[in-house]
Amino acid sequence: MDIGILVIGDELTSGMTLDTNSSFIARESQMQGWHVSSVMTVGDDGDAIKGGLDYLLGISDALVVTGGLGPTADDITTAAVAGAFGLDSYIDEAVLKQLKERFGRFGLPWTKNNVKQAMFPEGADIIANPVGTACGFLIERNGRPVIVIPGVPVEARRMFTGGVIPLFRERFTCREHVAKRTIKTFGRTESQIDQILSHEDLEIPGITIGFYPRFPEIRLVVTSRDEDSERAEENLRVVCERIEGRLHGHIFGYDDDTMEGVTASFLTDRKLTLSVAESCTGGLITDRLTDVPGSSVFLERGVVTYSNTSKVELLGVPASVIEKRGAVSEEVAILMAEGVKKLAGTDIGLSTTGIAGPTGGTEEKPVGTVFIALATEEGTTCRRFLFRWDRRRIKEISSQIALNMLRRFLVKEMD
Amino acid sequence: MDIGILVIGDELTSGMTLDTNSSFIARESQMQGWHVSSVMTVGDDGDAIKGGLDYLLGISDALVVTGGLGPTADDITTAAVAGAFGLDSYIDEAVLKQLKERFGRFGLPWTKNNVKQAMFPEGADIIANPVGTACGFLIERNGRPVIVIPGVPVEARRMFTGGVIPLFRERFTCREHVAKRTIKTFGRTESQIDQILSHEDLEIPGITIGFYPRFPEIRLVVTSRDEDSERAEENLRVVCERIEGRLHGHIFGYDDDTMEGVTASFLTDRKLTLSVAESCTGGLITDRLTDVPGSSVFLERGVVTYSNTSKVELLGVPASVIEKRGAVSEEVAILMAEGVKKLAGTDIGLSTTGIAGPTGGTEEKPVGTVFIALATEEGTTCRRFLFRWDRRRIKEISSQIALNMLRRFLVKEMD
Repeated sequence: MDIGILVIGDELTSGMTLDTNSSFIARESQMQGWHVSSVMTVGDDGDAIKGGLDYLLGISDALVVTGGLGPTADDITTAAVAGAFGLDSYIDEAVLKQLKERFGRFGLPWTKNNVKQAMFPEGADIIANPVGTACGFLIERNGRPVIVIPGVPVEARRMFTGGVIPLFRERFTCREHVAKRTIKTFGRTESQIDQILSHEDLEIPGITIGFYPRFPEIRLVVTSRDEDSERAEENLRVVCERIEGRLHGHIFGYDDDTMEGVTASFLTDRKLTLSVAESCTGGLITDRLTDVPGSSVFLERGVVTYSNTSKVELLGVPASVIEKRGAVSEEVAILMAEGVKKLAGTDIGLSTTGIAGPTGGTEEKPVGTVFIALATEEGTTCRRFLFRWDRRRIKEISSQIALNMLRRFLVKEMD
Repeated sequence: MDIGILVIGDELTSGMTLDTNSSFIARESQMQGWHVSSVMTVGDDGDAIKGGLDYLLGISDALVVTGGLGPTADDITTAAVAGAFGLDSYIDEAVLKQLKERFGRFGLPWTKNNVKQAMFPEGADIIANPVGTACGFLIERNGRPVIVIPGVPVEARRMFTGGVIPLFRERFTCREHVAKRTIKTFGRTESQIDQILSHEDLEIPGITIGFYPRFPEIRLVVTSRDEDSERAEENLRVVCERIEGRLHGHIFGYDDDTMEGVTASFLTDRKLTLSVAESCTGGLITDRLTDVPGSSVFLERGVVTYSNTSKVELLGVPASVIEKRGAVSEEVAILMAEGVKKLAGTDIGLSTTGIAGPTGGTEEKPVGTVFIALATEEGTTCRRFLFRWDRRRIKEISSQIALNMLRRFLVKEMD
């Protein structure tokens, strides 16, 4: 089933308000196995609304319309929908009575413009609003249901899940079952992953694989559709297994997992403690780790050693090494990781030092040069990177790589 | 001038990703005095793209198309636009050469599918992408410009303001001049600000004031329109001055200012040095400060003292005080700020300690209890807060208040 979504409001076409309703409706529709043909946003304008309704009805089996059902002068959706379909409007006395009672109950003065919220196109079925004053309605157009609900996000969400989904399910028996999994990867570019996954054995009917880069990660969403729910699940399982086989090590989590959350779980499970010494990442690594509830169990301390003095005092890095090799160097990164590990008395020490820019680069060490070191009982490893991008992104990718080095060490530990 | 916006991507029609580009483009268009006729979102599907292009061209003077210009199989926008307009595509050798050079420079392996990013419909004018690999292009359709740009938000934004706006301005002369200023506030609620600003002397023809809460800040956007550009600027200046008179102290910056950027400038200008001791904010304060280029001038060190031991070792907080008062207490917050200031030898010390939750609260100190202390040459101040909200938001508002305490101390210093 194809669903069209029409979103109405001058606040949206002027960019004053960000529309989040259509994304919610699209997500919920997909979970029902329905396909969204198009989302259209228009202002509070009769002609634009009529144009949108006609276009979307031409490419959809059902329509959801949100917004413009309030009492003010710019709320014209009911009249515009009635007009577009050549229908008169009427005042529903039962709704009007309820509205007046509601105003009285909350001690609000009744103003005439509220009558508008009791008006509906003739022949419409009224849909109750459990969380607000404006009711929705359902109207047929050439045998296709058009459902109109308010635009206030909390009302639109409640009415879509509680009102629209049951109505659509009743009419459109859905033969398709949908199973879905998000695979979160790091360390390969979109085109590399695309090539790795260009394989006939992933081309299973009903399976689609979408790519969603969210810097610095790339997410793969595997969707499996089948009339038989068990087969949908089974196909999903098989495809995910094949993808895992090819991207192994670059997959850090699934669905709602985060890099910091996964790493934190490994540390907690293994009862290992961590300390962090950050220079160029400026505290972002510990900020991310401390977003995870319970991180105090494994995180002993973090230090943001921005000055050379602090590297000497808080980490025991010899001033002579900093002078000879530079604060941004493999030697200093290693001594930082080992120093924080030793002084904090933790199982693991993690460090970053680099030039996040925009100034401070040299020919030998240009802006974007970053060293990341991991010190464990097994020894210390250090990697050198050169990033393009701006200061914030250099911090973000450096923190991601640092956490990923730690994660990969812990995964190996877990095996 | 009417602008149509076509947004392309399965991640949008499936509700996986929230489209923020069209809202940005709509807002910027409005600032230019242009009107957005409609925003349409379709999936990566040739027919849907063709349908959207045809519909929007019927109701608009110009089109902006975003998304689907990447290297993977589902990126079909260029081919779909060419197909919709009955055009062939060609490989632009100059763009291809630049792409390959770019890959080489960053040590990325060149894969065949990247050739797609050098393909354009015949007759298209190529628009450079200053922040990514996918170029945009301009093509004419019945005398109407259709501009296609990538969907990656940072690229879409840069290319819209830097590429599309100048191109459209050249073609469409606009009679209205628009002047705009964003006023950034912290410390008052939206309804408090609304009341403070409900004044006749702000009701000037052509002036609109919009409220945009962006946790934990509230931004006011003052827009001034007039046919005469000087009058537009003058009206803007007068209104902003009146707002400043009423919100003084709660305004921390304008337009692109950030709380951390403003605070960093004050520190740099005054040649004052800072050290930070964070417990519940977990490194977020130094993360924000180190987003500012040049922060190494004033930031000596940060410490994330998550364990009691680290508070003793890195800050000199006596273990007996922690035991007696608790790690989350006014006494410990003050000793942390004073300790880091003394040990780092800086002019100012800033500290946070609190219970970010979801567990760890007590009756006396429930989840959300946070102490923030500022130690300067003039003495130490400490404030206690109780926040509702989740762990991340408690961290965010605590870091904001800490920076704001520092900013207000420095502003006073500046007077």
